[in-house]
Amino acid sequence: MPERFETVSFLSDYGTGDEFVGVVKSVIRSIAPHAVVVDLTHGIAPYDVRGASLALARAVQYLAPGVVLAVVDPGVGTERRAVAVEVAEEGSVFVGPDNGLLAPAVAMAGGADRVVALTEERYHLPAPGPTFAGRDIFAPAVAHLCNGSALGDLGDPIDPNTLLPGLLPLTRQENGSLVAEVLWVDRYGNVQLNVDPDELLVLGDPVSLSFNDRVQRAGRAVTYSAIPPGAVGLVIDAYGLVSLAANRHSAAAYLGLGVGDSVTLREADDGAGGSAGVTSRVAFEPTRRRP
Amino acid sequence: MPERFETVSFLSDYGTGDEFVGVVKSVIRSIAPHAVVVDLTHGIAPYDVRGASLALARAVQYLAPGVVLAVVDPGVGTERRAVAVEVAEEGSVFVGPDNGLLAPAVAMAGGADRVVALTEERYHLPAPGPTFAGRDIFAPAVAHLCNGSALGDLGDPIDPNTLLPGLLPLTRQENGSLVAEVLWVDRYGNVQLNVDPDELLVLGDPVSLSFNDRVQRAGRAVTYSAIPPGAVGLVIDAYGLVSLAANRHSAAAYLGLGVGDSVTLREADDGAGGSAGVTSRVAFEPTRRRP
Amino acid sequence: MPERFETVSFLSDYGTGDEFVGVVKSVIRSIAPHAVVVDLTHGIAPYDVRGASLALARAVQYLAPGVVLAVVDPGVGTERRAVAVEVAEEGSVFVGPDNGLLAPAVAMAGGADRVVALTEERYHLPAPGPTFAGRDIFAPAVAHLCNGSALGDLGDPIDPNTLLPGLLPLTRQENGSLVAEVLWVDRYGNVQLNVDPDELLVLGDPVSLSFNDRVQRAGRAVTYSAIPPGAVGLVIDAYGLVSLAANRHSAAAYLGLGVGDSVTLREADDGAGGSAGVTSRVAFEPTRRRP
Repeated sequence: MPERFETVSFLSDYGTGDEFVGVVKSVIRSIAPHAVVVDLTHGIAPYDVRGASLALARAVQYLAPGVVLAVVDPGVGTERRAVAVEVAEEGSVFVGPDNGLLAPAVAMAGGADRVVALTEERYHLPAPGPTFAGRDIFAPAVAHLCNGSALGDLGDPIDPNTLLPGLLPLTRQENGSLVAEVLWVDRYGNVQLNVDPDELLVLGDPVSLSFNDRVQRAGRAVTYSAIPPGAVGLVIDAYGLVSLAANRHSAAAYLGLGVGDSVTLREADDGAGGSAGVTSRVAFEPTRRRP
Repeated sequence: MPERFETVSFLSDYGTGDEFVGVVKSVIRSIAPHAVVVDLTHGIAPYDVRGASLALARAVQYLAPGVVLAVVDPGVGTERRAVAVEVAEEGSVFVGPDNGLLAPAVAMAGGADRVVALTEERYHLPAPGPTFAGRDIFAPAVAHLCNGSALGDLGDPIDPNTLLPGLLPLTRQENGSLVAEVLWVDRYGNVQLNVDPDELLVLGDPVSLSFNDRVQRAGRAVTYSAIPPGAVGLVIDAYGLVSLAANRHSAAAYLGLGVGDSVTLREADDGAGGSAGVTSRVAFEPTRRRP
Repeated sequence: MPERFETVSFLSDYGTGDEFVGVVKSVIRSIAPHAVVVDLTHGIAPYDVRGASLALARAVQYLAPGVVLAVVDPGVGTERRAVAVEVAEEGSVFVGPDNGLLAPAVAMAGGADRVVALTEERYHLPAPGPTFAGRDIFAPAVAHLCNGSALGDLGDPIDPNTLLPGLLPLTRQENGSLVAEVLWVDRYGNVQLNVDPDELLVLGDPVSLSFNDRVQRAGRAVTYSAIPPGAVGLVIDAYGLVSLAANRHSAAAYLGLGVGDSVTLREADDGAGGSAGVTSRVAFEPTRRRP
């Protein structure tokens, strides 16, 4: 049986304080010694399926071809399905629980082509309890895929349309304002919104932010360093979304914002904003658009 | 000299905030570039030999064959011995300080077959001080073992019977109650007890838990998700021991329990417990045994 | 094009709570699948260029030959240069921002031989924003170097003398006292000073420490375990510098010391110190030098 995959990209909420990650990797290495595991992160908050699905979606286009293992699994041991999802592009396979975690990344990778439930017990490790599927079900499935096992060997086929979708929040327009949501706060305190830069076109620069009974002005900036000390900037981040940021400080801490918070963006009162006549794309610059 | 081992499983209390782990792995890679290091965890609390020995014991049966490096070493630089322990099964070698850390895992892997102290200075790195044995003594020993060095090359033979044993707490019976101890609190707040499921047979379901002046009822559950909201469940965990758990919450935080705490389990007052006549094995289920 | 490097040693302030590190490693693996990444640490405090430069300097002599990638980059996206620095010894290449981070390690590795700015956009990943140079500029540069690309392919040559130097604090003598600075507090609370053991020769044993309005006596010790309970010891640490330490406790927490704090060392008042006539090297021992 020819080896098929050489890279496993691995994300979980296991943390690194316990030996969970190491044991999953040990099982993979025991079965498929040639496979290299690249840890994406294991620092997802416990049970945070949405946070994990966003991290995976941010990473997916950069992953080496192979198997993607993602485990945030509050329903472990229940009737939620454990799945392997083959995507159209490049034939990569995503392995994890069917709870929405994989959905955005799978969509970005071309969509689910073929799916199986990991029901074939021959590929499971014997286990005293059903609570560590990463070790007992997912890791051996990943390793056998790397070794060349066919997707269909791992269990029963599933209709891709029955996979649980991932639900991402959309912005909405409200009286000329844009109601957004915080998707992510990173280590540096940058606050990623679910806002596409194009959505800012009509709001001008700076904009007024309202959230949690606070109002804050924010000007656009190309880089973090271009944000004046003490100010909050709007940056197009490395993922093409709009982030609130500060220069060498945590915008999240300064603003008191966290994941899931609602932020309303509107034209600033000083009339510096755009108008209905603006049609050209606004450059995302630290300088104001109007003198 | 033919290469002998291809995998190093590595556990320590070094944390990952400093570069200690990276330097140990760099030394191994410099000497034995073919060896792959699998990190089990480096999040063991500083100096916590017992916690590390339990983590290693939980992991050991899943490790890829090779060298196991474990370093939690409060006595570094003193007369405590640095050792390499060859076990009977598969010829794996455990390397670390002789302070009880390796003992439970070595026992589970078949027991110490041959042991040497890492006294051969030819295999040490020159070092300005004796405080980083992981880098200067353990890492080169591990790498040379991977490269094919014989155990005996690394230093003087030791009688395996002189290795410091690991001491694990046993439960005890007290007036029909079972006095247990918390072995581990994991990232999710699951509280592992030193209790074998068989020991619960006579206590019925639910049981009454006493600890730190509190009393708490807990019913059995097969999975975390089967535990009712707000309740504490008794689960057979992924290691075959009894854990206190909550559904998507930290049982440890809810109960105020930490490692080393004593927990007394007894028949619940409502008479739902088992009796002297119970002889069949009790299924570990979320439903009560009696209507 | 023959493969040139097989190891990438990687240090950053990315943390491991986000997927930044995993994405950088995925990009490297996608381009140069044969290269192995050894993580030194990603736990550098955000923006702490000096702390990162010290960690890298502590590690550098132990690294496997290859590429060293170091990213702490508060000026990302600005005119600060992204550079690749080839050192004389062994031909290793250091890649990172030109902000002083690489300087001490480069100096320890023989000094910069040839330098380029990573200006060749053919080797960059396309990116929606300029804020993740690790992924878009540094990772592909590292991978192409591993694959055999010449240094000059990556961008324009730079005069090595124009690289930003690293500035490390020097001790100074003041009225017979030695004014030192805390360089590093490690996971165990050991407090590394910028003091060479030779500088202690004239101060005797124990010495008197003054810092933050406190005075503390500290005796010398060879190992942490030789420090009496409740006492603070002076240890020659694993890097050849003087550290303040306690036995199985955090000296930093006990003394209230942090990185950058000033500590003045002087002869203890009880006259146990050395005199001007001391010329022989003082052994660094837990016992006092004079009866």
